Amino acid sequence: MSCDFLALALPGVQKLSPYVPGKPVEELAREFGLRAEDIVKLASNENPLGPSPLAVEAIKASLPELTRYPDGNGFALKQALSRVFSLQPEQLTLGNGSNDILELVTRAFVSPEHEVVFSEHAFAVYPIVTQAVGAKAVVVPARDWGHDLEAMAAAITPATRLVFIANPNNPTGTWLGKPELEAFLAKVPERVIVVLDEAYTEYVEDADFPRGFDYLTQYPNLLVSRTFSKAYGLAALRVGYAASHPQVADALNRVRQPFNVNSLALAAALASLGDQAYLEASRAINREGMLQLEHGFRELGLSWIPSRGNFVAVDLGCEAAPVFQALLREGVIVRPVANYGMPNHLRVTVGLGMENQRFLEALTKVLDRG
Amino acid sequence: MSCDFLALALPGVQKLSPYVPGKPVEELAREFGLRAEDIVKLASNENPLGPSPLAVEAIKASLPELTRYPDGNGFALKQALSRVFSLQPEQLTLGNGSNDILELVTRAFVSPEHEVVFSEHAFAVYPIVTQAVGAKAVVVPARDWGHDLEAMAAAITPATRLVFIANPNNPTGTWLGKPELEAFLAKVPERVIVVLDEAYTEYVEDADFPRGFDYLTQYPNLLVSRTFSKAYGLAALRVGYAASHPQVADALNRVRQPFNVNSLALAAALASLGDQAYLEASRAINREGMLQLEHGFRELGLSWIPSRGNFVAVDLGCEAAPVFQALLREGVIVRPVANYGMPNHLRVTVGLGMENQRFLEALTKVLDRG
Repeated sequence: MSCDFLALALPGVQKLSPYVPGKPVEELAREFGLRAEDIVKLASNENPLGPSPLAVEAIKASLPELTRYPDGNGFALKQALSRVFSLQPEQLTLGNGSNDILELVTRAFVSPEHEVVFSEHAFAVYPIVTQAVGAKAVVVPARDWGHDLEAMAAAITPATRLVFIANPNNPTGTWLGKPELEAFLAKVPERVIVVLDEAYTEYVEDADFPRGFDYLTQYPNLLVSRTFSKAYGLAALRVGYAASHPQVADALNRVRQPFNVNSLALAAALASLGDQAYLEASRAINREGMLQLEHGFRELGLSWIPSRGNFVAVDLGCEAAPVFQALLREGVIVRPVANYGMPNHLRVTVGLGMENQRFLEALTKVLDRG
Repeated sequence: MSCDFLALALPGVQKLSPYVPGKPVEELAREFGLRAEDIVKLASNENPLGPSPLAVEAIKASLPELTRYPDGNGFALKQALSRVFSLQPEQLTLGNGSNDILELVTRAFVSPEHEVVFSEHAFAVYPIVTQAVGAKAVVVPARDWGHDLEAMAAAITPATRLVFIANPNNPTGTWLGKPELEAFLAKVPERVIVVLDEAYTEYVEDADFPRGFDYLTQYPNLLVSRTFSKAYGLAALRVGYAASHPQVADALNRVRQPFNVNSLALAAALASLGDQAYLEASRAINREGMLQLEHGFRELGLSWIPSRGNFVAVDLGCEAAPVFQALLREGVIVRPVANYGMPNHLRVTVGLGMENQRFLEALTKVLDRG
């Protein structure tokens, strides 16, 4: 007698498969009867260092103002970002995490008759936001697990409105250098918006690594998306941002919710942005941990995809799902990536030394190669 | 030579006029050279009591986990809401403020060929979310500043997909009783989703006031939206929720961003929900402050719209904009509502006794009726 309400939802929404996040520690503890403090979570590319003390102080200082709405324009954070990155405040859009940015640009510019181009094995949110607006996803086969920019440029048609590029890419950790990125940008027609997702750019230390901000003047159709969730250690708070042509920012700012970024996120992001020591420490931990994981994989005779992120995709040479499950029983959460077309890989976040060791020991036990 | 990027945005987006929030204290201080501590803000229907101490403690306890993503399923908060309001967790959707809920239900169910019905003088977010998806807004003339539910029922056509009802309504403070709400719900076809926005319901103390949760079983097309931003005092954090038929919740949960509610918001909302003393104190302050404002208006010979919210719309009997500006110069921020079709009214949030007094004194001076 009652309506089928899901049938009333828009066609794009009915077909949506929501993003599958890393399993929260509390959930694993509940399911397997483990103690939360015994669980190692290397599943969500979170910063293992703990938060910046400056961010914690900024939050505490903001607590008396909890009853007040956030500054919907993010005045102070935009001023600081402009200063640090030599941008104009009018180029900036703040997001409830960079997920919000990826969604806003899609909702502002893409409708069902459009095509959106992205790579095989690229971040799962690209197909989700494309599907949500009912547009056609054009998935370009990867080359050596990374973006094949030549093929992506060739995939652009008159119906293409958006291209997503992740550099470095999640979950593969692959990256694009200056020559290939520049050649690609030069080929894309100006009516196609290129979203360069730089969620992990702060982890890349190569001197000649391309940074999207350097190309905004030359390519007004470029939007660079960044986040405070990774190297800045603020995933809990949800704050990301985009830099783009002011007109693109204007469109995004029309679509975003008036208070999309909460007050504590604004305060903590502002403080973290000024905490260069924290950023350096995050990079150092990541550098050491990556070497530790690579060494462990080598010892186990496993190969992996070389990564510039704070994570690495290891190839188990067999179906990874049972290994993932067995690791859960050992109290270690990593990320299965079968939904990325990588059924034999697990994505492992670089943790603290002891966390990496716990993971490597559990993996050794589970693979029975001890 | 450069593209017109705004022309590339979707037609609905190009026509969007973003929500105009209350002026932040810092912005007024910057513009008028005032000291922030001398400014009284009664512009955004914020709780003047300051935050719940339990919420503050819950946030402090969560700070070590800032680097971790939020629980995207909001397990603990949903469990608590289910317990307190006798709902099933499957009926619940959490939002980045109830603004998120209003947007999610529109994006999940409404496309450009649909109509959305709401009242004249109703909350500004209803026309914005309708416009953002390119649907047709059907604005039903108000009756005595409030919703004319008979006319709204009559405005439903085969193209209608959504009706927004605010009870109490913002910015008028008007409210609907049980008989009229029940008669309306009985008239709406089941294929039309009724969004009952109860952002201010916690302030209403009338024993026979209708609460949407009581009608969810009888009317599966009803969605009730609530927020922690008002009586619970957490506007800074952005957390709201919806209760609905599980299928409607399923659709909303597909559309929402995977981590739309931040961790500190989840923790603080959970704590506030258990702080009955805070809720009672918020209601008491509001009751007293409303009497104080009404008394002041009476002394000044001004009429106002009787309100069940934590705000009141006062009729200045002349254009309100110059009075709003003059009050700013006195360091008092209230809300002009000309954009709600109420050019002679100002909406004033009920503050603490001293804040209300500051406002009434400034108003007396500005109107030169001292």
